[in-house]
Amino acid sequence: MNSEIITIGTELLVGNILNTNAKYLSEELTTLGFNISKHTTIDDNAYNLETAFKDALLKNDLIILTGGLGPTKDDLTKETVAKALCKNLIEDTQAREKINAYFQAKQIEITPNNYKQSLVIEGSTIFYNNKGTAPGMAIKYNNKYIILLPGPPKELITMFEKDVKKYLLQLTNQIILSKDIHLFGIEEAKVDQILSDILSNANPYIGIYSKTGEITIRIAAYASHKDTCEHLINNILDIIKTRLNEFIYGIDISSMQNALVKTAIKSNKKIAVAESCTGGLIASEIVSISGSSNCFNCGIVCYSNEMKEQILGVEKETLSQFSAVSPQVAKQMAQGVRKIAKADIGISTTGIAGPTSQDDNKPVGLVYVGISTSKNTSVYKLLLSNGQPNERQKIRKISALFAMNEARKAILNN
Amino acid sequence: MNSEIITIGTELLVGNILNTNAKYLSEELTTLGFNISKHTTIDDNAYNLETAFKDALLKNDLIILTGGLGPTKDDLTKETVAKALCKNLIEDTQAREKINAYFQAKQIEITPNNYKQSLVIEGSTIFYNNKGTAPGMAIKYNNKYIILLPGPPKELITMFEKDVKKYLLQLTNQIILSKDIHLFGIEEAKVDQILSDILSNANPYIGIYSKTGEITIRIAAYASHKDTCEHLINNILDIIKTRLNEFIYGIDISSMQNALVKTAIKSNKKIAVAESCTGGLIASEIVSISGSSNCFNCGIVCYSNEMKEQILGVEKETLSQFSAVSPQVAKQMAQGVRKIAKADIGISTTGIAGPTSQDDNKPVGLVYVGISTSKNTSVYKLLLSNGQPNERQKIRKISALFAMNEARKAILNN
Repeated sequence: MNSEIITIGTELLVGNILNTNAKYLSEELTTLGFNISKHTTIDDNAYNLETAFKDALLKNDLIILTGGLGPTKDDLTKETVAKALCKNLIEDTQAREKINAYFQAKQIEITPNNYKQSLVIEGSTIFYNNKGTAPGMAIKYNNKYIILLPGPPKELITMFEKDVKKYLLQLTNQIILSKDIHLFGIEEAKVDQILSDILSNANPYIGIYSKTGEITIRIAAYASHKDTCEHLINNILDIIKTRLNEFIYGIDISSMQNALVKTAIKSNKKIAVAESCTGGLIASEIVSISGSSNCFNCGIVCYSNEMKEQILGVEKETLSQFSAVSPQVAKQMAQGVRKIAKADIGISTTGIAGPTSQDDNKPVGLVYVGISTSKNTSVYKLLLSNGQPNERQKIRKISALFAMNEARKAILNN
Repeated sequence: MNSEIITIGTELLVGNILNTNAKYLSEELTTLGFNISKHTTIDDNAYNLETAFKDALLKNDLIILTGGLGPTKDDLTKETVAKALCKNLIEDTQAREKINAYFQAKQIEITPNNYKQSLVIEGSTIFYNNKGTAPGMAIKYNNKYIILLPGPPKELITMFEKDVKKYLLQLTNQIILSKDIHLFGIEEAKVDQILSDILSNANPYIGIYSKTGEITIRIAAYASHKDTCEHLINNILDIIKTRLNEFIYGIDISSMQNALVKTAIKSNKKIAVAESCTGGLIASEIVSISGSSNCFNCGIVCYSNEMKEQILGVEKETLSQFSAVSPQVAKQMAQGVRKIAKADIGISTTGIAGPTSQDDNKPVGLVYVGISTSKNTSVYKLLLSNGQPNERQKIRKISALFAMNEARKAILNN
């Protein structure tokens, strides 16, 4: 079913708030097997709303409008939709009672305009609001479906979970399943080239999404039965695994830090981190995962040589002979923190995040990552600069991802 | 000037990501005095894009399209716009050189499809990309302006700041100046109420933007002369200062960590951090500021009692008597890390980030923040949960902001 989401509110167009409703509804509708063709955001203006709504009605089977159901005179979503469909607004007794109850409970005096919210489009299915006073509604019109929902995310989400999902499910007998494959260490263009023969698939749909240092491949399959979806997905998954396995760090896992924490907990290994250039980023990302205390108890951010000596026991001679940004220091940092924390895996980073380097032989973006286990300590050299300005955050982020990925591999191989 | 923002990407329509580009551009354009009539989001589909673009071209003076400038075959924004305007795509030598340089620096082999990104619409003004390989471009067409920008937010924002803002400013014959006032510790609704009498101003325009724990008030004034702008801004700034001064942590400063680092460097003070519940977040945010090594050399993430004792010298008795989440432990952590690092200011955090608490007397969201100076050590108690699920990141973030803000104040008062 082709669908459009129309979000209404001047606060969205002036950039005061993020359009979280459009994302939430898109995610939910996609999972329910609807195809979202468009998001439209317009201000609280009857003409703009009518134009956008009529245009959406021509092109879609389902239109969801959010916002503009409030009590004030610039809330005119249901008035405009009713006019466009040549339908009347009628008072819904239950909605009126709920408004009375709501204001009584809050001990706030009801103003006449509050009752504007008890008006609904004739012949519509009403979704009562458990978090506010504006009821939602759904209208069937020439085999098309129009749903009006309140703008405040809390009201919208509660209403969607409680009633709207059920309403939508009985409109379609199709389901959709999806799988996210997470990759590190490969460029989007390279992935696109390697998968070019399957990227134009309609079902399963294959999407490639990239963020700093990472690629996510999403496989989404539509069918009337769960098994068919799974079968469709697994066929593509096998192809992707055979072609890109070395880069895959997880499937349906939210992040690299989540992959590392889950792996460490599963194999009952403890991680400790000694960070220089990443400066707490690795520790912070590990701790962002709830339950990480089961595999992580110590992170040291040693931003000066003195601290590297004093806390991690890096040798003065090593620091003076090779300087802080060297494989030798990375090695001793990883070994040091592993001992201090009595951990199984010691991770270290030392490098030049920029924007400038004091040492001509050590360019911005030069990073050494150390991974120390009871068996051995490996050091990896990274060159992460493209010679662009403001690469500091990117260099730190990719160093952190690389280190967490190597730690994850070290756990699996030990 | 009437404007429309068209964001392109299937990942937006399936709800994979939030549309932060539409918010960012709306915020910036509003500040520059443009009127945004509509946001449209469509998938990577030539027909849908052409329809949306032609419709926008009829109704607006300025159209900004973001996304679909990548190297893959489903990136077709410039191809579609060129076709709609009956213009050709031509290779831009400088863009091609930048692509070569980008891949050489990364030591990655260039795939032929990468050069697709060096094609631009004939007669357009090119915006070179400092964060990626896709150039942006602007075309004047029948007294209307069309701007194409890359989808990755980092690339888009960098390009907008560097070139696009200038380009837009010469379309309006006005000078625009703005000031951002950064607040911590006050709710958006409260700010709205306190400034209600001036919020409807047209010039200077006053925008209120909130993100986790923080509020930014933007004052933007346009006039034909710089002095007039400054005069308009300063009048409003004075009003805001008299009403909200206690909450202001900085003016035109990018972040709390930036405010802290600048304050510390200016007063030649050294900071050290001992983190439990924030788990490296404070260290990481401090280190994200280039030059932070001048005021920061040590961060300790002690996620277990053992580490708190061993590294920070927190007393065993204190831990057993009061437990890790207590003002006593917060105090010893702050004092401990200050001594170890020979710093002027020791910052500590210990609390329950959630999602659950093992201790009935210590709810999720209970956080103690310690600030230790040579003169004294203060401990602050925070209760940061609203009883909602998934508050872990919010609790860690607000704790970090609070701690950095108190450290900043401690430096100013010492």
